[in-house]
Amino acid sequence: MIQQTEIELRPRARGFHLITTDIEREIKLPEKGILSLFIKHTSAGLTINENADPSVRVDFETVFNKMVIENDPDYVHVFEGADDMPAHIKSSLVGVSLNIPIQDYRLALGIWQGIYLCEFRDHGGARRVLATIYS
Amino acid sequence: MIQQTEIELRPRARGFHLITTDIEREIKLPEKGILSLFIKHTSAGLTINENADPSVRVDFETVFNKMVIENDPDYVHVFEGADDMPAHIKSSLVGVSLNIPIQDYRLALGIWQGIYLCEFRDHGGARRVLATIYS
Amino acid sequence: MIQQTEIELRPRARGFHLITTDIEREIKLPEKGILSLFIKHTSAGLTINENADPSVRVDFETVFNKMVIENDPDYVHVFEGADDMPAHIKSSLVGVSLNIPIQDYRLALGIWQGIYLCEFRDHGGARRVLATIYS
Repeated sequence: MIQQTEIELRPRARGFHLITTDIEREIKLPEKGILSLFIKHTSAGLTINENADPSVRVDFETVFNKMVIENDPDYVHVFEGADDMPAHIKSSLVGVSLNIPIQDYRLALGIWQGIYLCEFRDHGGARRVLATIYS
Repeated sequence: MIQQTEIELRPRARGFHLITTDIEREIKLPEKGILSLFIKHTSAGLTINENADPSVRVDFETVFNKMVIENDPDYVHVFEGADDMPAHIKSSLVGVSLNIPIQDYRLALGIWQGIYLCEFRDHGGARRVLATIYS
Repeated sequence: MIQQTEIELRPRARGFHLITTDIEREIKLPEKGILSLFIKHTSAGLTINENADPSVRVDFETVFNKMVIENDPDYVHVFEGADDMPAHIKSSLVGVSLNIPIQDYRLALGIWQGIYLCEFRDHGGARRVLATIYS
């Protein structure tokens, strides 16, 4: 069985944001299956990482900004702003989809795992995520 | 229901190539489901990113070459050419598989999203992608 | 049909480890489908790469350590050791899940592809992977 739900995530500041509960509240989980999340944008991404200490998410932003710098004179695609081309690259580094197993009507995340929205634009606006559950 | 189709992608130059239509023309999409793509190589990858301005794909090549340099004196695995070891690393950074939701008989991609073949070798040759659709 | 199996991987040294046979021996593959693997940790990852020459895995460790350095004075999240924050970042770069097609009762991996456990901690201990097969 396949169920699909489109979820709109409210606008967030540039950075990494824990959205596990934003996702869980929009979907009804079956006993067993997979939740596939897909973000329909090219300058944001989804990843799974530490859900406890907010400083982890601060360091994510620091490291990704060093890994993919802004204003590299070699960039050709520059007309949408200094944050745009780096945002595309970062999106492909983390990816735009996640597959999370479902067990006993719950996401089978590890105890420290949470779902991150990776907002790579300065003003990305609301973001749309398509959730597909197969059970 | 599960359907599998092996797709051969013609040889491409090193770089990032939009292959959305190459994929769509080889498969028949159901009303609802997931398309899982898997590239059977260790020096190429698949990602989803901007489908409009070709300069984005040029900048992808620039950035990935800076992120994973050739001829690092610390490399041990050097006998297959200067482009080989960086190609393996880049493949794991973008990944070899994609999961794309299907809605209304179409890939539910965002308006700016396209599927990229990431060709990391100088002469990678034809590449095989296994498409699995579950519906 | 959906089957789930939790697999415990024995502790490994920091680095990249081929675990294809560790996974295959714990699961029974159907004729056709997808194997979804999900590692329930935030400082380890899963990827697919070259299965033949062990020096490739050595170079992976070298490159990832250069890409995400330890003891960056800009890190805020430092109380769990110098290897901890880099481990979180590396985990999001490779990802915590894999989707591998199944054909003819076997993983449809390319001839040179193997499954890697990416152990990013100095002493990560045993790691749990949830395998979900849909067929």
